[in-house]
Amino acid sequence: MREVAIVGIGSTPFGRHAGTPIEQLGVRAAAEALLDAGIDRARIGAVYLGNFISGPLNGKEVLAGIVADQLGLPNVPCTKVEGACASGGIAFRHAWMAIASGQCDAALVVGVETMTHANTAQTTAALNCAMDNEHDGPSGLTFPGLFGLAWRIHAERHGTTRAQVSAVVRKNKRNGLLNPLAQMGADLSDDQIAASASICDPLQLYDCCPTSDGAAALVLVAKPLAREATGIPVDVLATVQTRGASRIAGHPDLCSFDATVSAAQRAYAMAGVTAADIDLVELHDCFSIAEIIDSEDLGLAPRGQGAIWAAEGRTAVGGQVAINPSGGLLAKGHPVGATGVGQLYEVVRQLRGTHANQVKGAEIGMTHNLGGTGVACTVSILRRSM
Amino acid sequence: MREVAIVGIGSTPFGRHAGTPIEQLGVRAAAEALLDAGIDRARIGAVYLGNFISGPLNGKEVLAGIVADQLGLPNVPCTKVEGACASGGIAFRHAWMAIASGQCDAALVVGVETMTHANTAQTTAALNCAMDNEHDGPSGLTFPGLFGLAWRIHAERHGTTRAQVSAVVRKNKRNGLLNPLAQMGADLSDDQIAASASICDPLQLYDCCPTSDGAAALVLVAKPLAREATGIPVDVLATVQTRGASRIAGHPDLCSFDATVSAAQRAYAMAGVTAADIDLVELHDCFSIAEIIDSEDLGLAPRGQGAIWAAEGRTAVGGQVAINPSGGLLAKGHPVGATGVGQLYEVVRQLRGTHANQVKGAEIGMTHNLGGTGVACTVSILRRSM
Repeated sequence: MREVAIVGIGSTPFGRHAGTPIEQLGVRAAAEALLDAGIDRARIGAVYLGNFISGPLNGKEVLAGIVADQLGLPNVPCTKVEGACASGGIAFRHAWMAIASGQCDAALVVGVETMTHANTAQTTAALNCAMDNEHDGPSGLTFPGLFGLAWRIHAERHGTTRAQVSAVVRKNKRNGLLNPLAQMGADLSDDQIAASASICDPLQLYDCCPTSDGAAALVLVAKPLAREATGIPVDVLATVQTRGASRIAGHPDLCSFDATVSAAQRAYAMAGVTAADIDLVELHDCFSIAEIIDSEDLGLAPRGQGAIWAAEGRTAVGGQVAINPSGGLLAKGHPVGATGVGQLYEVVRQLRGTHANQVKGAEIGMTHNLGGTGVACTVSILRRSM
Repeated sequence: MREVAIVGIGSTPFGRHAGTPIEQLGVRAAAEALLDAGIDRARIGAVYLGNFISGPLNGKEVLAGIVADQLGLPNVPCTKVEGACASGGIAFRHAWMAIASGQCDAALVVGVETMTHANTAQTTAALNCAMDNEHDGPSGLTFPGLFGLAWRIHAERHGTTRAQVSAVVRKNKRNGLLNPLAQMGADLSDDQIAASASICDPLQLYDCCPTSDGAAALVLVAKPLAREATGIPVDVLATVQTRGASRIAGHPDLCSFDATVSAAQRAYAMAGVTAADIDLVELHDCFSIAEIIDSEDLGLAPRGQGAIWAAEGRTAVGGQVAINPSGGLLAKGHPVGATGVGQLYEVVRQLRGTHANQVKGAEIGMTHNLGGTGVACTVSILRRSM
């Protein structure tokens, strides 16, 4: 397989873009990434677009082709991929594969979603497309229910407290304040978090990521082509896609996602690094408790200590490993199909040394994108180009 | 790139499967394909699932992971791909790419859709997700409208008559009678076709494919592994994916689809064959007039003579090139995401020499799967394994 570099990045702010057609958000982010890359558009040999619920919420599909058409790209394969909340990460992996395998020399990745125009019932129904509804539907569990249960188990097993979980919320919300693309940065006190509305006990309002619109895009090239690009290149050391159980009862443990654990192990092996080498991570904190579980599953924090690590500041910018310096899903927002691509956008900015919330001396960064109840996962590891 | 063979095929009948969850249809077809292939399930290294509108019509996504989980497949990348009506062909191309590029040695392809449980308004709205609704929505055109216009132009330009177009309908409906998987085979007279209800002038009822449920599946392996399989192998000579204009006004000619023309040219070059070498084709006859246009775009019939060729019997089984011996979308049915995979199922059966409507001595077969208003297309060429 050939080496691949990311040479162009683009993103809309995450938040409310009511009235903007979904494909226009995708085009906006992609045009920025192409401009940043500075390579001839005629070189783009594949387009992968990550999107989850544009069908149910917008009545729009074939978005990969529509976005490519509006960008004036050549006649190349344009494919939408879907794996619930991991759709963006899956799109990235496929663009990587197209180049690494020699199918093409350059590829465009777009992640896009619009959700804020829909009402709560529509959004909840659409998000639940990510569940195995035949088997888990009768339980009445939606995603807050699942992660509420996980929190209860984590607390029972490890003595995790509201205050420790609040440390994750405070960190990510404060990181979000520094990110111009973030939807809901805030400087919150423990009291404000603890006083916020109950969503699904023990989850409270600030423990949950918002509903978001947004798009992010990347231009990838075969390593030798990176010299021609104007964008500062970042190397793709690894990108891995895994599968976990599709039904909730299929998970041996609700406090860990098999798909994350296996993706991380494979990604470290592929990249030839260990968890200790990672300077920063953008991981899938759809809920505060998810960041805690993810940080353990990825091997960043010891099992059971994800919350303590956050409370001790070890996962802050300047700490042992910076987790979600972008603000994460909790503060940056979670336009589902865009999220995985947006995570890569953030890590590239960090490794270029041009992030608004810069992790000093960052050399190796990781992204973690989790879909459904853990049925799909991608982990990617990037390195500052030498 | 490594050589790839199809060693396992499976399919549900196309038609009504009301009450059967969509993932169960996929599992059924896939289990049959795995059994046919006779290779250890643990060897499957990637799953690609083609589906178009399960989100809007079933509220179900992440189907690739759900189907793989229910089949007990290992922890491997499971990806849903979407390109409207070309979703199945795109799934096949990605499984081919995963093997050809050495990512894995065996892969499972599933195409699946359920539509008959929805009412006409829901189905029409869902199918229209395949349009560029921002630009073409205001015209009020749906797919019958688009193909009705194409017919008018074809008739104006080439003198194509109702009787000539009816020859396509008669052929495909009669072929469908011989296919045990077909939804709506029939032995129709010209008078019956001409007397059928007007759908969108000049399109009448029998000119339009039905609404269908169904699933089809394939097991692909790297060529050297084909010897271990129990299923009779068929070689993949070429598989190509292209993009055309996403908006109707973007097409220079409504009587031809750029994406088909370029996909066919590239596929012939990749396979090292010409149109004259093709013994049979399963092509995208969503409407009778579509078969006529497709047969010209694929270079099988001279431009303007697609209808005449059908009327002269040159596209019948036993003719110059057998077009849609399965009955095609018109008679076999069109469960959208399953269609492209179903076409490959049919061609493999023909090249194995075990089709119920066998093309004698068939050595090389082709499939053509077209999405949206021509925004996505796949063409694949298969050969009897030597």
